[in-house]
Amino acid sequence: MSGESAMESAAAVENMLGEIAGVGRASTGGYQRFAWTREDHTLREWFRGAAEAVGLDVTEDRVGNQWAWWGDPDASLAAGRPGVVTGSHLDSVPGGGNFDGPLGVVAALRAVDTLRRDGFTPARAIGVVNFVDEEGARFGVACAGSRVLTGALSPDRALELTDGDGITLAQALTAAGRDPRALGRDDETLARVGTFVELHIEQGRWLVDEGSAVAVASSIWPHGRWRFDFTGEANHAGTTRLADRDDPALALASLILTAREAAATLGCVATVGKIRVVPNGVNAIPSAATGWLDGRGADEAAVRRLVPMIERTLGARAVEESFTSTTRFDPALAADLAGLLGGAPVIGTGAGHDAGVLAAHGVRAAMLFVRNPTGVSHSPAEHAEPADCDAGAAALTTVLRSLAAG
Amino acid sequence: MSGESAMESAAAVENMLGEIAGVGRASTGGYQRFAWTREDHTLREWFRGAAEAVGLDVTEDRVGNQWAWWGDPDASLAAGRPGVVTGSHLDSVPGGGNFDGPLGVVAALRAVDTLRRDGFTPARAIGVVNFVDEEGARFGVACAGSRVLTGALSPDRALELTDGDGITLAQALTAAGRDPRALGRDDETLARVGTFVELHIEQGRWLVDEGSAVAVASSIWPHGRWRFDFTGEANHAGTTRLADRDDPALALASLILTAREAAATLGCVATVGKIRVVPNGVNAIPSAATGWLDGRGADEAAVRRLVPMIERTLGARAVEESFTSTTRFDPALAADLAGLLGGAPVIGTGAGHDAGVLAAHGVRAAMLFVRNPTGVSHSPAEHAEPADCDAGAAALTTVLRSLAAG
Repeated sequence: MSGESAMESAAAVENMLGEIAGVGRASTGGYQRFAWTREDHTLREWFRGAAEAVGLDVTEDRVGNQWAWWGDPDASLAAGRPGVVTGSHLDSVPGGGNFDGPLGVVAALRAVDTLRRDGFTPARAIGVVNFVDEEGARFGVACAGSRVLTGALSPDRALELTDGDGITLAQALTAAGRDPRALGRDDETLARVGTFVELHIEQGRWLVDEGSAVAVASSIWPHGRWRFDFTGEANHAGTTRLADRDDPALALASLILTAREAAATLGCVATVGKIRVVPNGVNAIPSAATGWLDGRGADEAAVRRLVPMIERTLGARAVEESFTSTTRFDPALAADLAGLLGGAPVIGTGAGHDAGVLAAHGVRAAMLFVRNPTGVSHSPAEHAEPADCDAGAAALTTVLRSLAAG
Repeated sequence: MSGESAMESAAAVENMLGEIAGVGRASTGGYQRFAWTREDHTLREWFRGAAEAVGLDVTEDRVGNQWAWWGDPDASLAAGRPGVVTGSHLDSVPGGGNFDGPLGVVAALRAVDTLRRDGFTPARAIGVVNFVDEEGARFGVACAGSRVLTGALSPDRALELTDGDGITLAQALTAAGRDPRALGRDDETLARVGTFVELHIEQGRWLVDEGSAVAVASSIWPHGRWRFDFTGEANHAGTTRLADRDDPALALASLILTAREAAATLGCVATVGKIRVVPNGVNAIPSAATGWLDGRGADEAAVRRLVPMIERTLGARAVEESFTSTTRFDPALAADLAGLLGGAPVIGTGAGHDAGVLAAHGVRAAMLFVRNPTGVSHSPAEHAEPADCDAGAAALTTVLRSLAAG
């Protein structure tokens, strides 16, 4: 054992989170760390430095995901023992917190550091990954880094994705000094990942109610994103009679209210959290309005009924931007990890993760969740107690020790 | 007379509108020409050049309004004959057209040029003005240039106005090379304006239905702007149960629908054309939502009842950002101009104008409206036929000839 005290151990995790907390504070509160921006670059540099500081060799794949290895993953693969990988992401939603993503990266680095200090000798390579563009906050597609890696998102479609300023992913990659033509499914990189374990702050209050610090994931709810475009006629807000108006903001308002009602009826959740009104002038009747609908739930059939129900009510059609069916993590692996962690609870989640993308691709994958005292996430109020963060890192250490032992 | 043909005359107005049309095209359609931006600067340079080309002396007041004079306005004032001024503005709403503002400036320059070519000798100075920041599209207060000039907007309040990027008017003025400390009521400049006549494209279909090319204004409807701020709790769109949500987008949606219903009940117009959702992420329940309400109508009592009715329905309070009572233009002057123009109709309007601000301050003021075939305004579809634009310039020429004759 490393001989560190519990206080020293907790401080190591807190210190790394504190370093990350200095990057990308948003003027409206929380953090704004979008893919391929200056903030993202700073965090990628931080990851490289922090991984090298614990003795890992850092590489990047063609998509831009960063991989930090303890041991040679290709030699490990050739010996019939593909690597054990852990990690998460460092990007954020607009106004997000400092735990969604960073906690998984920090716990991974901390776990590897602990194993090295303890003199552990892994039987297979151990990797720490920082997946790029997990939130999809800039280009609209979540888990873009892992989706391109696995081929779930084609390079042609990925490169055409456009941010709010009209910049395509291809342009953003070029501006960041990368080659957009390199994007595509990457089996060489995937083959190195024998098992993947992602640690993440819980985005709900299950663990608080349960009185546990750490859980193991069973599955990810089905999840869809749809776009409703409403067009009207731009006109003057003062001189245009009500009867002469074609105001698309009225349809947008109905979407927001109808989505909530439909979700309540179907027993799932629906959110219209992103909207756009053009031209968005106080004295201009809008020419266009758009609302993005996010729908999820434990019951896939119910989630599938959400949009048709809204479309019928509004008399409008939606564009499906993405739909991901229920993702089940390897049940045997989840049971093994729960056992290793002294009978940790095994729970489902409504949030998507890179671990889910890898699991859907057939990678043996698992997740650990760390207690969140309020359940609040994607918010400046997102929080986990230092003792729970450290308990998560310790649990991940235990898991890696087991998975890399043989 | 200048000997120009009708075709040559119409071409002069069209050419100037065409020059302005090259500035500030918005990517989403129409024009975006906000105060104290690069586009605004380009148009101010254009105004200076165009005014000097017809022989006028251009000055700027402390607020930033541009004044182009034919004759010395101070000598004219000292002789007991304060000047006759015409003009309008060159800024736009987001996604606006090329006529709201520019037509009044171009017709003014055209009218002065015609009088000079005709050998007319004015008995008092004639001025052409380009008012700054008429639309209030950037800092939220319409007619800011004329309101500061008349003292209706205090310099302290004006300088603290903030645009969508958090830049104050004081900062924008400094960045544009101007001294924010110079702002304030400017009686010296106002004293030069004996009479003000603003020509403007009609923002409605009264003249189309009437079959006339030009009208004279009687009054401007009362007009208020209010802001509704709704706060909620940012949270994850997938993992937060409906019952645990405090989603301010629902209140915003209710505002949009309730405002429309209340306006219909009261016989006025109401628009929620500008909204803001924070953080505006597809997978984030918003932490805050804001809607701006624009309300107007012929009946001031009805407009005053609009917000209390909405507040009662929503159980929320609004912040009044501005309220302007009915503005009546000088009835004798309006009657004179209608007579000069062969019995032109005299009509009211729902749109605010710098002429209204001057009238409310006690300046003898009038407006001319030019037919708009669709009535559409504040939109890329805003249009007036070349023949009607020229008819407007000819009417303004007739008016100036009369007002400056004695």
